[in-house]
Amino acid sequence: MTNDNRQMWSDLGIDLNRHDILLNALGPIYKEIYLSQKNRPKGMGFFDFVVGDIHGIRVQELRKHAMNGGKVIATYCVFVPEEIVWAADAIPVGLCAGAQFSVPIAEEILPRNTCALIKSSFGFKLGRLCPYVQTSHLIVGETTCDGKKKMFEILGQHQPVYVMEVPNKKTRLSRELWTGEVIAFKDVIEKLTGNKVTSAKLSQATRLVNERRRALRRLYDLRKVRPVPISGKDALLVTQVSFYDDVTRCIKQVTALCDELESRVASRNGVAHDNAPRILISGSPMAIPNWKLHHILETSGAVVVCEESCTGTRFFSDLVPENGGTVEDQLKAIAERYMQIHCACFTPNDERLDDIVRLARDYQVDGVVHYNLQFCHTYANEAVKVDEVLAKEGIPLLRIETDYSDEDAGQLRTRIDAFLEMIRK
Amino acid sequence: MTNDNRQMWSDLGIDLNRHDILLNALGPIYKEIYLSQKNRPKGMGFFDFVVGDIHGIRVQELRKHAMNGGKVIATYCVFVPEEIVWAADAIPVGLCAGAQFSVPIAEEILPRNTCALIKSSFGFKLGRLCPYVQTSHLIVGETTCDGKKKMFEILGQHQPVYVMEVPNKKTRLSRELWTGEVIAFKDVIEKLTGNKVTSAKLSQATRLVNERRRALRRLYDLRKVRPVPISGKDALLVTQVSFYDDVTRCIKQVTALCDELESRVASRNGVAHDNAPRILISGSPMAIPNWKLHHILETSGAVVVCEESCTGTRFFSDLVPENGGTVEDQLKAIAERYMQIHCACFTPNDERLDDIVRLARDYQVDGVVHYNLQFCHTYANEAVKVDEVLAKEGIPLLRIETDYSDEDAGQLRTRIDAFLEMIRK
Repeated sequence: MTNDNRQMWSDLGIDLNRHDILLNALGPIYKEIYLSQKNRPKGMGFFDFVVGDIHGIRVQELRKHAMNGGKVIATYCVFVPEEIVWAADAIPVGLCAGAQFSVPIAEEILPRNTCALIKSSFGFKLGRLCPYVQTSHLIVGETTCDGKKKMFEILGQHQPVYVMEVPNKKTRLSRELWTGEVIAFKDVIEKLTGNKVTSAKLSQATRLVNERRRALRRLYDLRKVRPVPISGKDALLVTQVSFYDDVTRCIKQVTALCDELESRVASRNGVAHDNAPRILISGSPMAIPNWKLHHILETSGAVVVCEESCTGTRFFSDLVPENGGTVEDQLKAIAERYMQIHCACFTPNDERLDDIVRLARDYQVDGVVHYNLQFCHTYANEAVKVDEVLAKEGIPLLRIETDYSDEDAGQLRTRIDAFLEMIRK
Repeated sequence: MTNDNRQMWSDLGIDLNRHDILLNALGPIYKEIYLSQKNRPKGMGFFDFVVGDIHGIRVQELRKHAMNGGKVIATYCVFVPEEIVWAADAIPVGLCAGAQFSVPIAEEILPRNTCALIKSSFGFKLGRLCPYVQTSHLIVGETTCDGKKKMFEILGQHQPVYVMEVPNKKTRLSRELWTGEVIAFKDVIEKLTGNKVTSAKLSQATRLVNERRRALRRLYDLRKVRPVPISGKDALLVTQVSFYDDVTRCIKQVTALCDELESRVASRNGVAHDNAPRILISGSPMAIPNWKLHHILETSGAVVVCEESCTGTRFFSDLVPENGGTVEDQLKAIAERYMQIHCACFTPNDERLDDIVRLARDYQVDGVVHYNLQFCHTYANEAVKVDEVLAKEGIPLLRIETDYSDEDAGQLRTRIDAFLEMIRK
């Protein structure tokens, strides 16, 4: 198996020496952060396996799909409508990277004042470290931030890139633009795959992706309970894996996990003390293996019960209506659903403020940690308004700006300890 | 006069003590940077006077206009179509700020990792230092970058702000969005002023703004000559002043200056030696009093002959067709003209690369200095492509990233000296 993987990675043009260093580092980190947790749900075993084989079986599956003439579509954002990809018998795979390892590689080209997510992702391509991007036939970018928007132009010198325009406002005109972009994306995918996106295929794909959304919603609903039956770290991992795992398998595994969590809830079997501070994290997405903030919080006595982020509620909260209709009807419904994502790229984006307050209540949180990656203008600025709104609501807030390095871990732990001390009263 | 000004500033809510410090600092800086230059055109006397009275007469004019029921529209970007503002008998005034003085004030609220232009501008409002913003009835922002887009939301808590959506791409759909935004802007201005934007008024305003564009084009054409009859610093100041001065007076003054420069050209009366390296600066805009880069270059033996920037060619290169027609026809023509601006906010933006190469040839430059403000993602990323294109064309390039502080002045001078040494061969 390992030999098969090495041959595959070699065929994909992976820099094997550097890649070895990367994978060898991941094991001990995962052991320390994940496997050290007590009383984990058994259902996390699958996700442990997925991380342990992170560039193995799933890449093999994608390769097999490609060898049979199928296409693989790489994405970096929850705005790319995966229903359309599945409907064309192509496979979408989320590529956002959360590793410091590839950041210095990216900094040879990209401005250093770029957020770690962009640098890490770009570095994975430039350093030939990611078999997923190597397997993909098309990278689909979007215009959700200046850093990514312009990075995609440079990335396009290395691999085919198509960029979808996500508008800046949510006016009628902006929504029309977005609907047009969704329709244009369908044309791009049809052309790439040679497969027609029919009404029946689109209905089927919509139901499938909605089913995964429902499964993740169920998982998150179970986190509302006190004591919480699953750690924030584990729940985050489930979401992270669902960005690139097979959708049907993902639904099955998340459902099994939720069944287990329900029996835990029935027996009041929690992963944290009843009085452990319950935390909502809100802000920038966290890609594998970016578990830094959750880890510090949960080893400081708190428990993370919700993520208002693209690797959290923004990924699955809204469903696409399953009303069927013509392809155009369905594409419009898809476009509308994605416009409900309250990303900080929009101006204004007050709905996100409402979301944070609502989630804080629904998940019975004791405090909110606003998290933004350094150099991310949209979330860093929006933190100002989050601060104002939460102060008005009397919900404690800690604002964290960080990157993927461990240099500030000590400082973060000190600040988090002080925050937890304060909210424990 | 001074007493009149103090009363006016007080009436406008200016923080007089802090404002005194600001104005008292400007005089010596201007003397050192501008008045120390040798063999300046006499026509610069007007612009010296304007800077010397920077918060005086022009503010009085705007106040008088406001007292007579007129409206003042503050802007931060060359994308806001001033033709529409003039056509409604309102007055547009550019508010971009180039002073380090107000940066720390802004940093009390805005993320520090924000470009100096945004922080300086926001700080001028927050610190009650700018009589122009105090005089204005509406601030019109745009979505050209994440930093401004989100800053405008916070600025909107202090003064009425309207944001125009500049799209991210230049597809047919994006252009339609922009045309819709231009039409919506007309409605906003009509409502604010109570004045109808008629076809005749719009034609008249278009001709007027075009005339200023032609005057500035003439000024820039005169900089193509060797030896160059005007310094880069002086030419930059002319452009900077034209962002907020009365358009008719501006045309008159620029025209008189150009007449003088023409006789200088005829007598080969230049401001720099024939062999002084001729530099094209390309990148972020430079607002008053951001003269830092020009000053270092021109006191190191070089002469700046062109700015490919929003305080340069992007401000005036393209004219709005003066074909008349219905208001809708004219608004469409206006929208199209503004879509010809090759701002780094667009993806792709290869036309800017073509512009830089063309301008480098037309202005017979010996080297290009790419300038971007620190934390500006769009220009910093685009610098990667500028680098590639100029290398291919054999045009020397120096990439500078800086802010408004003087902390890096020594380091910049060292790098610029080395660059000039290199291009002198």
